[in-house]
Amino acid sequence: MRTTTGWQATGPTVLRRASLERRDLRPDDIAVQVDYCGVCHTDLHALHTYDQHTKAPLVPGHEFTGVVTATGAMVTTFSVGDRVAVGNIVDSCGVCTMCEAGQENFCHSFPTLTYGGTDRQDGTTTLGGYSREYVVRNTFAYPLPGGLDPAAAAPLMCAGVTVWEPLRSLGVGPGSRVAVAGLGGLGHLAVKMAVALGATTTVISRTQDKLDDARKLGAPDLIDSTDPQQMATARDTFDVLIDTIPAPHNLAPYLKLVTMDGTLSLLGYLGPLTVEATDLLIGRKKLSSAGSGGRTATAEMLQFCADNGIAADIEVLPSSQVDTALDRLQRNDVRYRFVLDMSDLD
Amino acid sequence: MRTTTGWQATGPTVLRRASLERRDLRPDDIAVQVDYCGVCHTDLHALHTYDQHTKAPLVPGHEFTGVVTATGAMVTTFSVGDRVAVGNIVDSCGVCTMCEAGQENFCHSFPTLTYGGTDRQDGTTTLGGYSREYVVRNTFAYPLPGGLDPAAAAPLMCAGVTVWEPLRSLGVGPGSRVAVAGLGGLGHLAVKMAVALGATTTVISRTQDKLDDARKLGAPDLIDSTDPQQMATARDTFDVLIDTIPAPHNLAPYLKLVTMDGTLSLLGYLGPLTVEATDLLIGRKKLSSAGSGGRTATAEMLQFCADNGIAADIEVLPSSQVDTALDRLQRNDVRYRFVLDMSDLD
Repeated sequence: MRTTTGWQATGPTVLRRASLERRDLRPDDIAVQVDYCGVCHTDLHALHTYDQHTKAPLVPGHEFTGVVTATGAMVTTFSVGDRVAVGNIVDSCGVCTMCEAGQENFCHSFPTLTYGGTDRQDGTTTLGGYSREYVVRNTFAYPLPGGLDPAAAAPLMCAGVTVWEPLRSLGVGPGSRVAVAGLGGLGHLAVKMAVALGATTTVISRTQDKLDDARKLGAPDLIDSTDPQQMATARDTFDVLIDTIPAPHNLAPYLKLVTMDGTLSLLGYLGPLTVEATDLLIGRKKLSSAGSGGRTATAEMLQFCADNGIAADIEVLPSSQVDTALDRLQRNDVRYRFVLDMSDLD
Repeated sequence: MRTTTGWQATGPTVLRRASLERRDLRPDDIAVQVDYCGVCHTDLHALHTYDQHTKAPLVPGHEFTGVVTATGAMVTTFSVGDRVAVGNIVDSCGVCTMCEAGQENFCHSFPTLTYGGTDRQDGTTTLGGYSREYVVRNTFAYPLPGGLDPAAAAPLMCAGVTVWEPLRSLGVGPGSRVAVAGLGGLGHLAVKMAVALGATTTVISRTQDKLDDARKLGAPDLIDSTDPQQMATARDTFDVLIDTIPAPHNLAPYLKLVTMDGTLSLLGYLGPLTVEATDLLIGRKKLSSAGSGGRTATAEMLQFCADNGIAADIEVLPSSQVDTALDRLQRNDVRYRFVLDMSDLD
């Protein structure tokens, strides 16, 4: 086994520095020195529900970038020293129709998650990117295109591809009218990508002071979701509404803003929803959801971001301040994504 | 005022023969002798929730065919003796973006319903097609194309257009894979139309003996929704799933059958839904709903049915047996739509 260092949960929201084991490289593995790892809402959720007495070890982190330090015998696509990025999926069955379509995120036997997943060969629980080294099957690592800052690119691997997939699958391009509800880690990347895809992009927020931010991101308009007049004026307007609000909320007012045959894509809150069928019926609206992405979309997204100068707006903290990052994320006190610098683990 | 005869509610599910008043013809009105009126689940629902002490008079019926008996001074598109059909909408504002798009069913100030609606000019409550005469603004009556049997065509005006709109807006055509869940008044028309549009069409039912019916309608396959193996085999298969089940039910097993970027369109049950966001997320499924149709779609649907020899499978009863029809509809004892013959009201 290989040994590295990381931040491991010892109870809900408590992380301690710990020595971790990584597997010896399989023929198709690479070892990655993790330089930067984003802090995702999923990490908070995993920590909040963690009980060390009943669960396997937890090391969060599923959006990271770094450098290849070793390659397995069969690996031909990566060399030591290459810059790479890894997201929230590290394996899949490879043979189902979804895997064959490049949509490993929908693998029929469920993809292996970057942390908290079960390795398909040895059955161990995967430990995430809040660590200095990660060993990953090379097909689930992505070359980090030149021009992308490795710290600001880390959040692209979860937040980025999560907004990219619906924008692409819903056909957003020049002439599209896109609204982004909620301006946070997901939302700010959705705005940047929608603008770069050529869409007229509007931010919907209950926080009036995010108007300035929205303008900087390229969205000319903000709709204050607490103003009935603004919401009424925007009725039947948007081809795609990317809903990144990370808590349960009434979908009806947002569905009203979607144009006929348009789609509300729910990304921020993934629990049970209650929706009135008539809110879908009247004006012929569609409801969808998204999260993560397949290998094809992930690679495409990285190249698009490199070509268009897109990365996350981040605040970098040394990994030893992970508790601060999680606490402030909990209070929405970040614009817009924390990234941990892992070099302090050396 | 004009006087006619119809079937009026005197309490929940109790209808009595009554003399009804119809307005004198406005310049853009026509008077229609109602020959055949379909019996819709909506009629049952309206009767079940009816209280004569608190509500305006109720005469159900919103899918009927007949013959023009008089025309207003400005009417140029209809003449006395023309065969016509009327559906569940008899007016709309005419100026909102939805009306301008030919989607009067989504009129921003709500369309005037054929019964239980409020007339936009005189404020009276509209009385439906369970009667011998109806007076309607001519733009909401449709010429009944030659070749369509007036009895079997009546259900096209509500059930028919309700399934037609989603099939068309979701792009069903040659090569599409369509599933129809629930084989009743809506479902059997959805199968006929999907087949005629060139789709490979499958019926999903918990009633195995509907297989023979499904074959006769042109659907080669039936999926037994109570058989987990059949449901598993059909995972990610259908571009469009038309869900006509008229009661609350778990959508998850049906969403699983929809292919990536495909849509489940909910037509049969229009109350509040609970759905897990992850059931939309995994495999990238969309949820929509539909009901009724605009003028453009209605006219198009009628011509398509005439061109393709499509009409409802009906059981005709004299209108005096309306209670029998409603009772048997309640028990799903009809294949697939009751139509009342109104000539016994003369």
